[in-house]
Amino acid sequence: MELHILGCYAATPRTISNPSGQVLEMKNHLFLIDCGEGTQVQLRKNKIRFSRIRHVFISHLHGDHFFGLPGLVSTFRLLGRDLELHIYGPKGIKEAITLLLKLGDSWTNYPLVFHELESKEPELIFEDDQLTVETIPLNHRIYTNGFLFREKLGERKLNIKTATEYGIDKCYYQKIKSGHDIVMGDGTVIPNQKLTFDPPKPKSYAYCSDTAFLPSIVQQIKNVDVLYHESTFLESEAHLVKKTKHSTAKEAATVAKDADVGTLVLGHYSTRYKSIQPFKDEALEIFPNVELADDGKVFRFWQN
Amino acid sequence: MELHILGCYAATPRTISNPSGQVLEMKNHLFLIDCGEGTQVQLRKNKIRFSRIRHVFISHLHGDHFFGLPGLVSTFRLLGRDLELHIYGPKGIKEAITLLLKLGDSWTNYPLVFHELESKEPELIFEDDQLTVETIPLNHRIYTNGFLFREKLGERKLNIKTATEYGIDKCYYQKIKSGHDIVMGDGTVIPNQKLTFDPPKPKSYAYCSDTAFLPSIVQQIKNVDVLYHESTFLESEAHLVKKTKHSTAKEAATVAKDADVGTLVLGHYSTRYKSIQPFKDEALEIFPNVELADDGKVFRFWQN
Repeated sequence: MELHILGCYAATPRTISNPSGQVLEMKNHLFLIDCGEGTQVQLRKNKIRFSRIRHVFISHLHGDHFFGLPGLVSTFRLLGRDLELHIYGPKGIKEAITLLLKLGDSWTNYPLVFHELESKEPELIFEDDQLTVETIPLNHRIYTNGFLFREKLGERKLNIKTATEYGIDKCYYQKIKSGHDIVMGDGTVIPNQKLTFDPPKPKSYAYCSDTAFLPSIVQQIKNVDVLYHESTFLESEAHLVKKTKHSTAKEAATVAKDADVGTLVLGHYSTRYKSIQPFKDEALEIFPNVELADDGKVFRFWQN
Repeated sequence: MELHILGCYAATPRTISNPSGQVLEMKNHLFLIDCGEGTQVQLRKNKIRFSRIRHVFISHLHGDHFFGLPGLVSTFRLLGRDLELHIYGPKGIKEAITLLLKLGDSWTNYPLVFHELESKEPELIFEDDQLTVETIPLNHRIYTNGFLFREKLGERKLNIKTATEYGIDKCYYQKIKSGHDIVMGDGTVIPNQKLTFDPPKPKSYAYCSDTAFLPSIVQQIKNVDVLYHESTFLESEAHLVKKTKHSTAKEAATVAKDADVGTLVLGHYSTRYKSIQPFKDEALEIFPNVELADDGKVFRFWQN
């Protein structure tokens, strides 16, 4: 389970930095989150197999989060993709992508499925037997959602040693892993707790970009393992956050602290700053576990 | 007068190559021709001042010639541009760009002027006192134009030595440069030819991409100094040109030869080839002056 940062700088792409884009690997899914211009080249640089991406989540329709998507959709076609691609993003995203494909007379030869979002309340937008994805409505200049990825609680782990000692037949193992007690031939009940270990704690990841300081999200992201929260500015530029509806590193750290998350990852830095280290320093004054996203960086938080 | 190749490879952007984009510097203009994804980063790498670009020419609406434009338009806004930007391209380009800006609620704060093209005959689309730009209708899978940039014949150059010998007052110099004879006080007529040199030969550049082999353009581009002609394939893949409506290097060279151009520049190579040298070798069998475009290359043909 990994988080690949493809790009994490605000506004324009530069020779030394890329706009927003990241890939979350969770339970065999590769989720692409935001897709600024140049994302497909960043995917190649990071050696991520295009065919493994089946779900793209777009937070909002500012160019630095979205202008790489038409090219990626086209490249998938040129590479002969036949797998479905699901795109989750604000209402209007379908019109934009389909217009560009229509103008180029280059409709995809694979199914492109749009899931347009317009609710201002959190919504469950994806679910399978292993995980869920919910929107986190944010407060930016245009309609914007963060995304909350949560693994489901898995099966209990079989304690093979105990099960063998009790002489339980293998055909009951699946029943045990599902949480059932076992009734032996003599009527003795062996409680499930004796036969199993707790399943691993489900992992969770919240992506919150772009947004002004928004304490109301704390409840929804409470206790997530990892929170990626934008920090476009430092407190020294705090006068800019109101108009631009971005956050400072201190504000991001305040959300992390109040939500009691495991680790805070900062990103979406304004390109005005020569170094990103001050973002970490500022956040550390509020919250102890802070990491800095950077283009090409891979986080493996969940392997500890 | 220079030609900067920002990108000259077909189809998808890669870590090692870029889709179509080039900047022609002619008579103090910086013309951006095509704008594939990543063009703005290539402009930065090539240290081209964004504010000097006032005219963008888009050949057709396939992504590899066009998907960098929304980002470039947005970046101009973020950089505080106030100069007009003129965009020349196929009908539909205005709808596409304005939709993307509307969805991001980020309309430009500088004037964006669209010149939509739909004629299938050559059209004069730009003219000032120093040069003209015409479309070159091409034959591709969708509506496509090349562009022909021609300097106008300049003023005659004053022969100061002769003018001084005749004792002609400086106030007549402009009249002489405009081509007039001079009548001296005693009625003697000094013919303009004695007082001037011929102006420099006007330079010309034709951009033809993407297109199938199209002999009918020969007449329009006859004798241009430099022809950039796409050569997506080598003759070994000639079976692909009919369906894709692209050209081979041999076909590009045939057009160059028939049009008797000064130099042929090849580009828009399919990314299937490991080396581009075979494109030059193939073209040289037909036409002697062949150059290979490559990303980041700068041609200074006109300084000889």
